[in-house]
Amino acid sequence: MAQTAAIIGGGVIGGGWAARFLLMGWDVRVFDPDPEAQRKIGEVIANARRSLPGLSDVALPDEGRLSFHETITDTVEGASWIQESVPERLDLKHKVYAAIQQACDTDAVIGSSTSGFMPSQLQEATARPAQIVVTHPFNPVYLLPLIELVPSPENPPQVIARAKDVLTGIGCYPLHVRKEIDAHIADRFLEAVWREALWLIKDGIATTEEIDNAIRYGFGLRWAQMGLFETYRIAGGEAGMRHFIEQFGPCLEWPWTKLMDVPELTDELIDAVATQSDAQSGAFTIRELERIRDNNLVTILRGLKARDWGAGKLLNAQDKRISRLPDTLDDADLTKPVLTVDRAVPLDWTDYNGHMNEARYLQAFSDATDKLMALVGCDMDYIAGGASFFTAETHIRHLDEVNAGTRIRVETQVMSGAGKKMHVFHWMLDGDRLLATGEQILIHVSLATRKASVPDDRVAVPLARIAAAHASLPRPEGAGAAVGVR
Amino acid sequence: MAQTAAIIGGGVIGGGWAARFLLMGWDVRVFDPDPEAQRKIGEVIANARRSLPGLSDVALPDEGRLSFHETITDTVEGASWIQESVPERLDLKHKVYAAIQQACDTDAVIGSSTSGFMPSQLQEATARPAQIVVTHPFNPVYLLPLIELVPSPENPPQVIARAKDVLTGIGCYPLHVRKEIDAHIADRFLEAVWREALWLIKDGIATTEEIDNAIRYGFGLRWAQMGLFETYRIAGGEAGMRHFIEQFGPCLEWPWTKLMDVPELTDELIDAVATQSDAQSGAFTIRELERIRDNNLVTILRGLKARDWGAGKLLNAQDKRISRLPDTLDDADLTKPVLTVDRAVPLDWTDYNGHMNEARYLQAFSDATDKLMALVGCDMDYIAGGASFFTAETHIRHLDEVNAGTRIRVETQVMSGAGKKMHVFHWMLDGDRLLATGEQILIHVSLATRKASVPDDRVAVPLARIAAAHASLPRPEGAGAAVGVR
Repeated sequence: MAQTAAIIGGGVIGGGWAARFLLMGWDVRVFDPDPEAQRKIGEVIANARRSLPGLSDVALPDEGRLSFHETITDTVEGASWIQESVPERLDLKHKVYAAIQQACDTDAVIGSSTSGFMPSQLQEATARPAQIVVTHPFNPVYLLPLIELVPSPENPPQVIARAKDVLTGIGCYPLHVRKEIDAHIADRFLEAVWREALWLIKDGIATTEEIDNAIRYGFGLRWAQMGLFETYRIAGGEAGMRHFIEQFGPCLEWPWTKLMDVPELTDELIDAVATQSDAQSGAFTIRELERIRDNNLVTILRGLKARDWGAGKLLNAQDKRISRLPDTLDDADLTKPVLTVDRAVPLDWTDYNGHMNEARYLQAFSDATDKLMALVGCDMDYIAGGASFFTAETHIRHLDEVNAGTRIRVETQVMSGAGKKMHVFHWMLDGDRLLATGEQILIHVSLATRKASVPDDRVAVPLARIAAAHASLPRPEGAGAAVGVR
Repeated sequence: MAQTAAIIGGGVIGGGWAARFLLMGWDVRVFDPDPEAQRKIGEVIANARRSLPGLSDVALPDEGRLSFHETITDTVEGASWIQESVPERLDLKHKVYAAIQQACDTDAVIGSSTSGFMPSQLQEATARPAQIVVTHPFNPVYLLPLIELVPSPENPPQVIARAKDVLTGIGCYPLHVRKEIDAHIADRFLEAVWREALWLIKDGIATTEEIDNAIRYGFGLRWAQMGLFETYRIAGGEAGMRHFIEQFGPCLEWPWTKLMDVPELTDELIDAVATQSDAQSGAFTIRELERIRDNNLVTILRGLKARDWGAGKLLNAQDKRISRLPDTLDDADLTKPVLTVDRAVPLDWTDYNGHMNEARYLQAFSDATDKLMALVGCDMDYIAGGASFFTAETHIRHLDEVNAGTRIRVETQVMSGAGKKMHVFHWMLDGDRLLATGEQILIHVSLATRKASVPDDRVAVPLARIAAAHASLPRPEGAGAAVGVR
C-alpha cells in the first residue's frame, strides 16, 4: 500500500515536495489556505512530471494520488511524513505544529523546510518535540537531491534514521547536520555570496548579468561536480590540501571582502538589481526560465550519471533500488521476448521540439542489449575478466515518433546465441504503439586480443537457454531486411 | 602564419594557458626557471589534449609549436600575447615586467594571471603601463571559459579590444571588469565561501566532505548554468527580482554569518582540514582527480552545448567560427563523397574504458546527415517553415574501435535524392582506417501532417544536383546489405 505524505503549505517549495513524493509513488495530501494553491502546486507538479521521470534510467513507481484538504487535521490523517513549508515566522510555525500534533500519528516525522530556524526553536513549547526535525530542501525540490536534515538533541536516533530512509526513498540526499546552527550549512554560503554580490552592484563594479557570468562560466561549473575542498585539493597539486591552505591561507588576511557590513537595501539598490535583472533575463517569462533551468539541470545530472559521480552517483544508486526489470533469467518469462528497457524518454534525448533524437533510438537498443548481456551472465564482473560482446551490425527501422516524458519499453528476442555470435531483435514500444525495431549482431571477443572468441560456459549456457526458449517464437516481421527493401 | 604567445611562469595556471593557445593553433614559447617546468607543463597539456579537442563539435585548428626558453628576452620574441603567471608578489611581478618590456613588441598585450592585484598596482613604475592588463583565469584554464579582463585607466580602448579578440579566439569568455578592485569579482565570492567553510570546520559543524556535498548536490548544480541572480529571479515567481529582494532582504540583517572575523589558521585547523580532505578524496591521486574533474566538466559543458545555454552557448559560437566543413554545396568537391563530420571523439561519447559507445556511431552519422541536409538547403530556416527529413531506416556496420580524442571524419555519398526520398551512405574514418559505415533512408515530411511530402525546390534542386554528381561514383561496398548477411 502506498505511504501518505501531508504537505502543509504549498507554493514552490511545498509543491516541489508534493511532486517528489507523488512521482515516487506516495499518496499526497495538501493543505494551503491560498485560493490559488491548487493552480500553483499544479504548475510545479507539471514541471516535475516533464523532468523527473526521465532523469531515471528505469521506470519510477506508479504515481500516487494527490488530494487537497480544507483543514490541517484532515490533511495529516494517515500520513507517515508531514512536511511544513509555511512562511518563515516562528509564531506561525508553532501554531501550525500545534494543529498538526493534535491530529497526526505520533510516529510520523514532521519535517520543516525552514532555511533559517534551528530545530530547537521549532520544537519550543510543542507537544512532542521529538518528532519535529528540519528538512531543508533546495529549489527546484523535485530535481536537486540535497536536503539538510537538522535534528536537535530532542530527536531520538530512530526519528533521524526514519527521516533518512524516507528522504533517500524519494530520491533525496539527506545531509545530516550534527550541530544545529542558524541557516544550517548551505544558506550560510548563499548569504555570504549574496551580500558580496549586492556590494558589487551597489559599488558599480558589476551588473547582475556579469556576476552570473562570473559564476556560471567559472567556479559554478566546478562546484556542480566537486564542491569547494575537492576542487582546491587538486589545486594544491600532489602536495594536497595542506599545501593549498598554507599557500592560500595568508590571502585570507587581505582586506578583499566587504562582508563585514550589510549593504543597506535602499530603494536605489533594489531598483538597480531589479532593472539589471530585467535587462539580463527579461526576454523569458518565469515559466520559460523554469523550463530552461530544468532542461539544463536534467542534462547536467544525466551527464553526471554517465560518469557515476556526484549527484549522478546518487541517481544511479536509486535506479538500482527501484528497477523493475528482471534481475536474472529466472525472473524473466522466457516464453516471450524479454523486457530489457522500461523508462521515460528523458529531456536530454530529445531535439528542440521535444522528439527523441534518432541516435537515442540506438541508445535505447544498446541499453537493451546491455541488459540482455547481463541476464546471460556477461555482466561487469565477466567483462572485467577479459571478454565481452561487441556489436558488429545494427539495423534500425524508425517507425514512429516519441516525445520526452513518454514511458517506453524495449522487448528483446534472441534469434540465435551459439558459438561466437549473438543475434537479437528489439521492439521499442509505447503501450501498443510500435516506435522502432532494432536488429543487432554481436560477436563475443577477447578483450586482450580484440579477436572473436567463444564465451565461457557461465555465459554460453544461459545464452543457449534463452536462445532455445526463443527458438519457438515467430520470426520477427522486418528481421533480416536490407535498407530500402520493403 | 601562426601567432605566438609567450608564457612567463608555468605550473598549473601557466600550463593551462599554454595548452589553450597551443590547441587553438598558436605557437607557444615558455619561460619558467623551475627545472621541473617542462614535465609539469607537459602534464597539464596532456590533460588538455585528452579533454579540449572533443569538447568541440568540429576539428580544432592544427596544433601550434611548443618551445621552452632560457631567458625572458628570448621567450617574448615575436609574441603578440605575453601571459605572466608568476607567484603573487608585487616586487617579483615588477621585475618580470621590466625584463619583458625590454624585449617585447610594443604592440603585444601583457596579461597577468593575478587573482589579487589590481592592474594599476601591476603597472606602477613600468616602462609602458598601457600594455599591461589583468587576465585572471580559472583552473582548469583549458576547460573553464571565464577570464576576468581588468584594465586600469592607463589602458587605451584598443588594448582592451585586442585582449578581448585574442581571448575569445582561444575559446575564453573575457569578462570585462570596468572598475578595478582587489580580487576582481569571482575571487571575492570564493573568499567569502572559503572563510565561511573554515568556520564550519573549526566549529565542528561540518566536515570538508559534508560541505562539498552541500554545494554539489544543491546550489552548485544551479550555478553551473544560471548563476545567482537568474536563479533567484525564478524563486521570486512571476513577481520577479524586486519581489525576491523584498522577501529575502530582511534575512540579511540576521546574524547568520561569521564572515566578519577571519578564522585563525592554527595548526589544529589546518590539521582538521587536511585530515578530512584525505578521508574524503584520498582514495584518488591528484592526477586521477584531475581526470575525473575534466571528464565531468566536459560532460557538463557538452550537455550545456546541446541546450545552447550558458558556457555551452559560448562553445557553439566558437564551433561556428572555427568549422572547416563546407558551408555550401559550392564549397564542396562533388566529384567525391562530401566531408560532413570532422571532429575529435569527445570524452562523453566513450565508455568506461575509453572506446566510443555504439550509440555514438549513429550520433556521428546523424550529425553527418544533418550537415548534408543543411548543404542541400534543409536548414533551420527551412525546417522552421514546416518541413524536414525524417530518418526511416539505418544500417550500421561497426568495423573497428575508436578511442576518445581520436580525430574522426565522416564522408557521405548521396545514393539517391528525388521525390520524397533521400538515400545516403556514410563512411566513418580515422585517417585511412575505416571505423564504420552507415546507410540511411530519409523521407521528406510535412511537419504539420507528419506525412511524406515532396520538398520545395530550394531543397529539391540542390539535392538533385548532388545526387546527379554522385551518380557516377561507384556503389559503396556494403550498401543494401541485410543484417547478418556477408
